[in-house]
Amino acid sequence: MEFDPFHYDRGMEVLPTSIKVGDQFLSRKKITEDDIKLFAAISGDHNPLHLDAEFASKSIFKQRVAHGMLTASLISAALASMPGTIILLSISLSFEKPVYVNDSLTAKVTTRKIEGSKIRLEAEISRGNDRVVSGKAMILRR
Amino acid sequence: MEFDPFHYDRGMEVLPTSIKVGDQFLSRKKITEDDIKLFAAISGDHNPLHLDAEFASKSIFKQRVAHGMLTASLISAALASMPGTIILLSISLSFEKPVYVNDSLTAKVTTRKIEGSKIRLEAEISRGNDRVVSGKAMILRR
Repeated sequence: MEFDPFHYDRGMEVLPTSIKVGDQFLSRKKITEDDIKLFAAISGDHNPLHLDAEFASKSIFKQRVAHGMLTASLISAALASMPGTIILLSISLSFEKPVYVNDSLTAKVTTRKIEGSKIRLEAEISRGNDRVVSGKAMILRR
Repeated sequence: MEFDPFHYDRGMEVLPTSIKVGDQFLSRKKITEDDIKLFAAISGDHNPLHLDAEFASKSIFKQRVAHGMLTASLISAALASMPGTIILLSISLSFEKPVYVNDSLTAKVTTRKIEGSKIRLEAEISRGNDRVVSGKAMILRR
C-alpha cells in the first residue's frame, strides 16, 4: 500500500464518553523505515543510529533503532483516543529497550488519578510481551 | 520550496568533540502545517485540536496547536547534535504554553551532570523569549 500521510485513517472506533480510574486506551503501530525517515525530517534528529544501517551495525544495537521520541509518539496517539478534548500537560518516559525497524508496538495508557479536568495516567509501550517504554503523563480533559 | 522529507539537510555544523557541564546544544525549527499533518500520520495522533481549524477555533486555544510530542521532538534533535553516539534513556517534559502553526522554536539542552557515559541535561523549548516547554533528559553517550 502506498504511504499517504495526508489521507491517513485509523478507522472507526467506538469510544466511551466518560472516564474512570483504571480505564485503558491503546494505540498500535508498526514502526516502518518511512516513519523513521519522516520523523528525522520533521524533528531534525538525523542521528545515524536511526538512519545509517552501516553505522548502526557497529553500535551496541547492531542495527538501526527508532528514535525514542518517535516511539513515544504512540503514547500521544493513545491519549488522543480518549473521549473529549485532550491536552497534554506533561510526560515522563524511560526508554528501557531499543525499538527496531518493523517492530509492531502497542502503547497503553491507564488512568490512575482524576482531579477535576486533570487526569494522571500510567503509560507503557510494548512489543509483544516485551515492555520497551514506561512512564506517566498528565493531561487536561475538557 | 517543495517539502521533501527524504532529502532534508540541516546544513553543516561545527561540533565540539568533548562535553563538559554547562555545554549547550541547540535545534531550531519553524513548525509548519505539513509537520503537523506528517506527525499525525506517523504517530496516529489525529486529535482535532491539531488538525481541524474549525474545531480548534472553539477550543481554549482559539486556533490549531502543534502536538506536544511534535514540539518535544526538537529536544531529540538538540540531543542528536551533541558529539558522539547519543542514546536517549529518559525524558521528562512539561508543556507550559501552546505552540501554534508557523511558530519558530528553539530547543536548548544544557549538560548538568556527567556520570561516566551517562549525561543528565536540562531541556527547554522557546518561541522567542517565551518558554513553551521545560524539562530534563538523560542520555548515554558513547
